[in-house]
Amino acid sequence: MLSWFYGGTKSTNVRVSLPAVCFVWQIAMIVLFGVFIRYNEEADTHWQEFRRENNISSDIENDFYFRYPSFQDVHVMIFVGFGFLMTFLKRYSFGAVGFNFLVAAFGIQWALLMQGWFHTLDPATGKILIGVENLINADFCVAGCLIAYGALLGKVSPVQLLVLTLFGVTLFAVEEYIILDLLHARDAGGSMVIHAFGGYYGLAISWVLYRPNLNLSKRLNGSVYHSDVFAMIGTLFLWMFWPSFNSAITDHGDGQHRAAINTYLALASSVLTAVGISSVTQKKGKLDMVHIQNATLAGGVAMGTAAEFMITPYGSLIVGFCCGIISTFGYVFVTPLLEKYLKLQDTCGVHNLHAVPGMLGGFIGAIVAASATEEVYSREGLINTFDFEGDFADRTVGTQGGFQAAACCVAIAFGIVGGGCVGLVLKIPIWGDPADDNCYDDEAYWEVPEDDESIPPILEYNNHMIHKLPDLSESNFQVEQI
Amino acid sequence: MLSWFYGGTKSTNVRVSLPAVCFVWQIAMIVLFGVFIRYNEEADTHWQEFRRENNISSDIENDFYFRYPSFQDVHVMIFVGFGFLMTFLKRYSFGAVGFNFLVAAFGIQWALLMQGWFHTLDPATGKILIGVENLINADFCVAGCLIAYGALLGKVSPVQLLVLTLFGVTLFAVEEYIILDLLHARDAGGSMVIHAFGGYYGLAISWVLYRPNLNLSKRLNGSVYHSDVFAMIGTLFLWMFWPSFNSAITDHGDGQHRAAINTYLALASSVLTAVGISSVTQKKGKLDMVHIQNATLAGGVAMGTAAEFMITPYGSLIVGFCCGIISTFGYVFVTPLLEKYLKLQDTCGVHNLHAVPGMLGGFIGAIVAASATEEVYSREGLINTFDFEGDFADRTVGTQGGFQAAACCVAIAFGIVGGGCVGLVLKIPIWGDPADDNCYDDEAYWEVPEDDESIPPILEYNNHMIHKLPDLSESNFQVEQI
Amino acid sequence: MLSWFYGGTKSTNVRVSLPAVCFVWQIAMIVLFGVFIRYNEEADTHWQEFRRENNISSDIENDFYFRYPSFQDVHVMIFVGFGFLMTFLKRYSFGAVGFNFLVAAFGIQWALLMQGWFHTLDPATGKILIGVENLINADFCVAGCLIAYGALLGKVSPVQLLVLTLFGVTLFAVEEYIILDLLHARDAGGSMVIHAFGGYYGLAISWVLYRPNLNLSKRLNGSVYHSDVFAMIGTLFLWMFWPSFNSAITDHGDGQHRAAINTYLALASSVLTAVGISSVTQKKGKLDMVHIQNATLAGGVAMGTAAEFMITPYGSLIVGFCCGIISTFGYVFVTPLLEKYLKLQDTCGVHNLHAVPGMLGGFIGAIVAASATEEVYSREGLINTFDFEGDFADRTVGTQGGFQAAACCVAIAFGIVGGGCVGLVLKIPIWGDPADDNCYDDEAYWEVPEDDESIPPILEYNNHMIHKLPDLSESNFQVEQI
Repeated sequence: MLSWFYGGTKSTNVRVSLPAVCFVWQIAMIVLFGVFIRYNEEADTHWQEFRRENNISSDIENDFYFRYPSFQDVHVMIFVGFGFLMTFLKRYSFGAVGFNFLVAAFGIQWALLMQGWFHTLDPATGKILIGVENLINADFCVAGCLIAYGALLGKVSPVQLLVLTLFGVTLFAVEEYIILDLLHARDAGGSMVIHAFGGYYGLAISWVLYRPNLNLSKRLNGSVYHSDVFAMIGTLFLWMFWPSFNSAITDHGDGQHRAAINTYLALASSVLTAVGISSVTQKKGKLDMVHIQNATLAGGVAMGTAAEFMITPYGSLIVGFCCGIISTFGYVFVTPLLEKYLKLQDTCGVHNLHAVPGMLGGFIGAIVAASATEEVYSREGLINTFDFEGDFADRTVGTQGGFQAAACCVAIAFGIVGGGCVGLVLKIPIWGDPADDNCYDDEAYWEVPEDDESIPPILEYNNHMIHKLPDLSESNFQVEQI
Repeated sequence: MLSWFYGGTKSTNVRVSLPAVCFVWQIAMIVLFGVFIRYNEEADTHWQEFRRENNISSDIENDFYFRYPSFQDVHVMIFVGFGFLMTFLKRYSFGAVGFNFLVAAFGIQWALLMQGWFHTLDPATGKILIGVENLINADFCVAGCLIAYGALLGKVSPVQLLVLTLFGVTLFAVEEYIILDLLHARDAGGSMVIHAFGGYYGLAISWVLYRPNLNLSKRLNGSVYHSDVFAMIGTLFLWMFWPSFNSAITDHGDGQHRAAINTYLALASSVLTAVGISSVTQKKGKLDMVHIQNATLAGGVAMGTAAEFMITPYGSLIVGFCCGIISTFGYVFVTPLLEKYLKLQDTCGVHNLHAVPGMLGGFIGAIVAASATEEVYSREGLINTFDFEGDFADRTVGTQGGFQAAACCVAIAFGIVGGGCVGLVLKIPIWGDPADDNCYDDEAYWEVPEDDESIPPILEYNNHMIHKLPDLSESNFQVEQI
Repeated sequence: MLSWFYGGTKSTNVRVSLPAVCFVWQIAMIVLFGVFIRYNEEADTHWQEFRRENNISSDIENDFYFRYPSFQDVHVMIFVGFGFLMTFLKRYSFGAVGFNFLVAAFGIQWALLMQGWFHTLDPATGKILIGVENLINADFCVAGCLIAYGALLGKVSPVQLLVLTLFGVTLFAVEEYIILDLLHARDAGGSMVIHAFGGYYGLAISWVLYRPNLNLSKRLNGSVYHSDVFAMIGTLFLWMFWPSFNSAITDHGDGQHRAAINTYLALASSVLTAVGISSVTQKKGKLDMVHIQNATLAGGVAMGTAAEFMITPYGSLIVGFCCGIISTFGYVFVTPLLEKYLKLQDTCGVHNLHAVPGMLGGFIGAIVAASATEEVYSREGLINTFDFEGDFADRTVGTQGGFQAAACCVAIAFGIVGGGCVGLVLKIPIWGDPADDNCYDDEAYWEVPEDDESIPPILEYNNHMIHKLPDLSESNFQVEQI
């Protein structure tokens, strides 16, 4: 309701652009789905025939039952996890959870197409056949864009976010194709393809969109008590379901089992070191909610590549241990420096939670892969885990480690270069982004309820019963100084 | 605390009626369960014998493992989804989530009995044998009543809600029996039996209970910032788990797989059109939280019948596309008209989210069924999908489409007529409902904490340090005008 | 921000002790995991060989697929359920959800070791082999400590909580070994080993740490409107997922199926009686949120032992019926008496939700076990359900009932005696606990955002536009008496 005052010169009116983008893109999705997307054999009514032809003994061996519980956990992470994690700002909770919802809902459709074209297009029919694993991958793909949103939270319009997502998903699909198919790297939980890419993508965009006068919105760049509690909903659902995230598309059987265990352990370890560093770096040892909300998750990010390998339980604890420390230090020391010297404004600190732990996760994966032995994995286990089949049947673990490391560099490069280019697109002054003194404010894009928290009480006011207290927080009620 | 003032002439004291209903009905449940309900063969200790007799090769083929993950998702939708979706009112969050909890907890017990009598009563033993699928169906059944609660939110007492549930579950079971068994219609996700029925049931009750002076409670009929964020918890859990809802009781294998994919796509599509219409219908293009909280779900409602059919992925997107538009328009234009001209007060807009999309879902299902072909489904797939077996072995898809459409009319008729009758019962002035100026207020039925949000601070008060500020929001503290 | 004023003489500065404990213990975990913990054969890359050797026909028979969905539900209960249930205090939500997170993250690691040494240490290799069932058991183990935290909420430092957890998990593992292995009692959902133990453990510690002047913090020992809504998130996730809790480690097939059904029913029944008693014991029949948040869960606690038995559906309803009553009465009458006469300060009323229902659940289990018959269970079912194999092949159900009852006494004794001893350790004045006038206050251990809820509005103040209202809730602003 104060936007007329704060609003500055920029218009945040998206009444034409937002509906236009939503409708045109959604119609495009329908057309493209009509041309390209069909059910795969496990979701099609021909499944019973397929079962008989392939000697599948029971319906329970439909991939649905292997992956659907994990899929739903991932789905919760994308929509509630990422959405609520970003509600910590005092007046941007609608934007956090609402735009996260919008972006993800568009992104998963576009991801099904982009990933389908690169990975599962049937050359004979020209169709993409989808099943539950594709849904998981679409959720994964969109996670990269939601991470990027974290760096831009409160500073961009929903139209910009949709543009960011259109390009982000496209870049993701290309990068993923290079990493998983051409380099034949393993990255089941996406340390590289999701977190490193998404983190650097968002940081690069944020760097291009640098706002020198952002401190005009400083009053809103912080939390209130209950917004921090809301953010903990996001943190906890991310934390709890991260084992499902890292195991959702790993191999059936031991692959999923091991990935879940490793991630569970790394996350537990991160919590203790995040708390320890948070306490030791604050005066009087008080904990900072920002660290608890974010750095506790670093272990999950960093295990995205190695979770399916035989990293050992204590190896997982060590990864979580180190990343909890690094991430918390990032929030305390690095983010302020990045803003001061690199002109990089990173609202949610995705540098510390996604970019760096993701990059580390990629290199940890490379090291663990390079040090794999037939003794530990068994010959068959080695082949299954690293997929040393077909063209890659002769690859050694050392070579694999090298390709893993190269893959990590590819992800980072795609994030930085792609983000730089997309940032330039988003800088065009047509997208309805807020003015520097109007950031972090739901007023810009939402009908916000007028009256915060108060029920108009009955009061005596100059001995008259009135129905509404002259509103102390808003009105021109005067206080006498004494 | 202000109820003495606002309370008018009606008493909301339910100290006798509420405990009486709770205890008498719960005891009745125990007696009826004692007479009728037993474990089915998959939950009974005789399972190992049953396995051997039926050549079931593994414990994993117990229906528990096919359906339990979906059951838990549905359970979350019923208790957290519906409960929190209704917390948007500034001072009715306790009632929203608490009465939802109470009603659902009673309803699932009564539903196990009612649905059991109609569907799974063993004529030989006179027992109802229950397993996980019955639990899902009970949750579904209660969803109808919770939808009806949405139309009445803030205007009824918990005793009325329990009466509404008693009759609602009963009507549901009869209607479901007619639709699924007699008409042999398919409705796995309940567009017709749950949403159309529940929506019109609630609207009819609300129409009978019309309150001409409801604007006396207008001050409380709206949201505050954080209540809107709470409501998003409900929205997102409903949205995320709707694929589980529509696939929970479909056929093992491809049936569950396909229903989940279709619902996932329709929901994604709804989000974009809901956002688009919300923006274009508001001044300055600002989004309205009411639309984001509700209309984004319309695609899930409308896919309740067709999700298990071969509607195709792009067909699902089209359904979501249209229903997102229709639902949002409903909130913007239809609800105000209904209140003005039809005297229909619909607190949560169930007309736009459940009644209309449910009805549309029923007819979409009819069309998709009627246009099914052996070419697309395969002969076996057609039989499995539409259950063309036994008495219905000769039914054509055209006939099936006709019966589907008839089923939708049955659901609506049951909702309207049943709701009208139950509304008359609820109009009897013995149920402790609030007065017109006391609606939407938790004070009526809850011990609400006195002191909102403020920690009593230390203040100087006439130069004395005091521990508690004279409470500005409640007392007759006087403010001097200057 | 008022801690300088309220702070009294005790220092809550944990800047040395908290990081020290976090780091030293986490490093110890890494070392111990390195020595002892490995993947079991279902999570190891040798799984494919193991499958062939054991004629396991499909990957879907990996225990992961039997238990992982239940594991994730349990995980949500531990972190979101217990965490948010305790957010009801107006200014201790950070501590509730944050310390719960910290304690659980440490506890699960220590529990994997302790439970591994007692239950799954391979004597040949000296290794503990872990899989998904161990993760569930670790979550269970930590639940005992989180229950104990409920009795101490707001009155202890995070360092004390970590000490409580270190000893609590140790005691738990010993007690569990005695109950499950030596006495060969069944307790799949932990009425005895988790709830009775955890409840009495917390109560005994609270009794030792009695604070005669706790009423100095009375102003903060209560809820506000939105903190009660947050707490309902915890309640509902506990309530919804309790069927998974009680069935997570029961036998494959009918065991899990039956345990889920029984728990579902008992919980539903609890809700109605909790609501009934809450209403009848309050003036004007208004419901008390404390009862709805807690007593509705009593049925789940009390079914922890008997859920896997053939207690029958109506038996489950009866258990829930009684425990809902007993628990609510506990909150209304017993807790105040305990505080007054026994000097027992129990913040969350764990006496009424965990200690007593857990104890009752143990004895209910004993009765149900003792009354088991071959007619109802079948010979094979009896053996499977009570594990009458090996050394226990000749045990009768009567004997089993006796051992179940003895097990319950063991759990309570461990809780009381262990809690007394740990309480003495925690009384040593080195742990940074808050002073009596500084309890229930996040200020003690958290950086709390300064400005609650208000966006600095634009105001006229003596006819000048100002940016910030003199903050009524914090400053020494003076009010003139008239």
